[in-house]
Amino acid sequence: MKEEESFEEKRERLNEMVMDSGNLEIKRFFNLDNQVYEEGALPKKTKELLGLVASLTLRCDDCVEYHLNRCYEQDVTEEEVMEALSIGLVVGGSTTIPHLRVAVEKWKDMED
Amino acid sequence: MKEEESFEEKRERLNEMVMDSGNLEIKRFFNLDNQVYEEGALPKKTKELLGLVASLTLRCDDCVEYHLNRCYEQDVTEEEVMEALSIGLVVGGSTTIPHLRVAVEKWKDMED
Amino acid sequence: MKEEESFEEKRERLNEMVMDSGNLEIKRFFNLDNQVYEEGALPKKTKELLGLVASLTLRCDDCVEYHLNRCYEQDVTEEEVMEALSIGLVVGGSTTIPHLRVAVEKWKDMED
Amino acid sequence: MKEEESFEEKRERLNEMVMDSGNLEIKRFFNLDNQVYEEGALPKKTKELLGLVASLTLRCDDCVEYHLNRCYEQDVTEEEVMEALSIGLVVGGSTTIPHLRVAVEKWKDMED
Amino acid sequence: MKEEESFEEKRERLNEMVMDSGNLEIKRFFNLDNQVYEEGALPKKTKELLGLVASLTLRCDDCVEYHLNRCYEQDVTEEEVMEALSIGLVVGGSTTIPHLRVAVEKWKDMED
Amino acid sequence: MKEEESFEEKRERLNEMVMDSGNLEIKRFFNLDNQVYEEGALPKKTKELLGLVASLTLRCDDCVEYHLNRCYEQDVTEEEVMEALSIGLVVGGSTTIPHLRVAVEKWKDMED
Repeated sequence: MKEEESFEEKRERLNEMVMDSGNLEIKRFFNLDNQVYEEGALPKKTKELLGLVASLTLRCDDCVEYHLNRCYEQDVTEEEVMEALSIGLVVGGSTTIPHLRVAVEKWKDMED
Repeated sequence: MKEEESFEEKRERLNEMVMDSGNLEIKRFFNLDNQVYEEGALPKKTKELLGLVASLTLRCDDCVEYHLNRCYEQDVTEEEVMEALSIGLVVGGSTTIPHLRVAVEKWKDMED
Repeated sequence: MKEEESFEEKRERLNEMVMDSGNLEIKRFFNLDNQVYEEGALPKKTKELLGLVASLTLRCDDCVEYHLNRCYEQDVTEEEVMEALSIGLVVGGSTTIPHLRVAVEKWKDMED
Repeated sequence: MKEEESFEEKRERLNEMVMDSGNLEIKRFFNLDNQVYEEGALPKKTKELLGLVASLTLRCDDCVEYHLNRCYEQDVTEEEVMEALSIGLVVGGSTTIPHLRVAVEKWKDMED
Repeated sequence: MKEEESFEEKRERLNEMVMDSGNLEIKRFFNLDNQVYEEGALPKKTKELLGLVASLTLRCDDCVEYHLNRCYEQDVTEEEVMEALSIGLVVGGSTTIPHLRVAVEKWKDMED
Repeated sequence: MKEEESFEEKRERLNEMVMDSGNLEIKRFFNLDNQVYEEGALPKKTKELLGLVASLTLRCDDCVEYHLNRCYEQDVTEEEVMEALSIGLVVGGSTTIPHLRVAVEKWKDMED
């Protein structure tokens, strides 16, 4: 049942729905969206931080939560996350604050 | 004469004009805008890359050029810059391409 | 009771609340917002697709759902919708993906 | 319990969580975000209206609700609010309409 | 000759070109765009400040220059303008700084 | 010499510079950016109009000029272009007007 699925499950279910839609360009975009965060000249950790700050300045809660999750997996520390978020806050202004709140709550939840 | 000043000189001259305007909050913001890029838990280099990608996704040429300059000073390599820009491109979409072109041209100019 | 009203009913109720507020310019804007999608040199169907893509690139879920509804009424096919959405995705970048997911789910719901 | 807290309580709780995170630049930004709305050459009331319109054009529901609250406290009339919102609507376009609906509903709720 | 026309003349010439294009909705929008700034429950001066801050947060140089001009005509003082701009800066973040510089330079030019 | 190159030549030269940078994801994005406008369930003409309106609402002059060019090649009429632009104007608001002016001037230039 839809009611019981978690944020991650819903995300996964809808991603599959999108991929099943059969549009080739959308599939290619989704692949590309994974590839740019792969280890390269820049380490994965840095790339996830880049994704996180871009998500905050563009004020996308889903994207912020996703990259925070990946940052957590890459052993980013709280201090590092907060510094990255502070850059996003200064670049994007007070209009990013509601998303900063979501980020900090999500981070605390992951740490507990 | 205004005609002969470089981009950097004009930027400097206008920044001083803003700071001279006597508004305390604007001055504080400008200070904060320097502080968030200072060495901390994250190295300066990473912070400049964060500023660069945020600038690209928000499509701000002046900001892109400024952070590219700082990245260059922090010995970021071309491969690293291009990976950072590729993340900005995928996050922000084709609407960032004109700014990506500015970035790549500016980078080549600095290398020459 | 508010709890039981659907998305469309809530939208309708709030639109009336806005129209009742007695601000003439807001009323004129709402009228204009209907007029631009009327049949003209471009068919209604094309105009709804234009509204849909603009809504996706500006990342407005309400607007996406509204124009998807109108596209459905204009007999736009799933393949056409997906092509339109793929343009929005490439123009607006990965930050539109959460809204693309909403769109695809809404479309499937309407087809069922 | 989280379930029972109001929008304002949640906002307050999360703001404290952000402030407790110990990042100095974020704290400074939050202070600055209060200072710019203080009485000055422009009256508080005008400044809250400026914050309201900026929030509408940037399509931030939380920010819209916050500044509406402050406008209400500053004895802004409904006619004044609607004129301010009409400017935001014309500057920001139909993509602000979902946020305009939130604003009008919130205003009516405060008046009741 | 095009070379010799000022910013205001070019703006005027292009506006006429748009109005001459014969699209009724565009004409109506242009009219509406004038009406929302007319004296009402809020004075013209406040409305121009609202337009100015919205223009800064949306980072539109042309719009910033236009509303600064109108603010100047409404006898807004430099201190008031700077306070309004400081709100736009805090709401919109460092990405508005290039436009803030344009605004301050334009203001100084008008005062001279 | 750089001075003598046209807008299209500069665009072409910079695109090659970007492609030569050797970042695979950027190349893939550029390819994808061409593919989504190819003839499909929706005709090329409609897709170019979708690109045009998305470009206007995202306020990207380069993108607007590019898609106007392609619309012209696809025999879109002036009336059709103006209707598409009127949708972009209403969706994106008065902040798109400077870009609408660029579009109308560019269109007249192509017709002459």
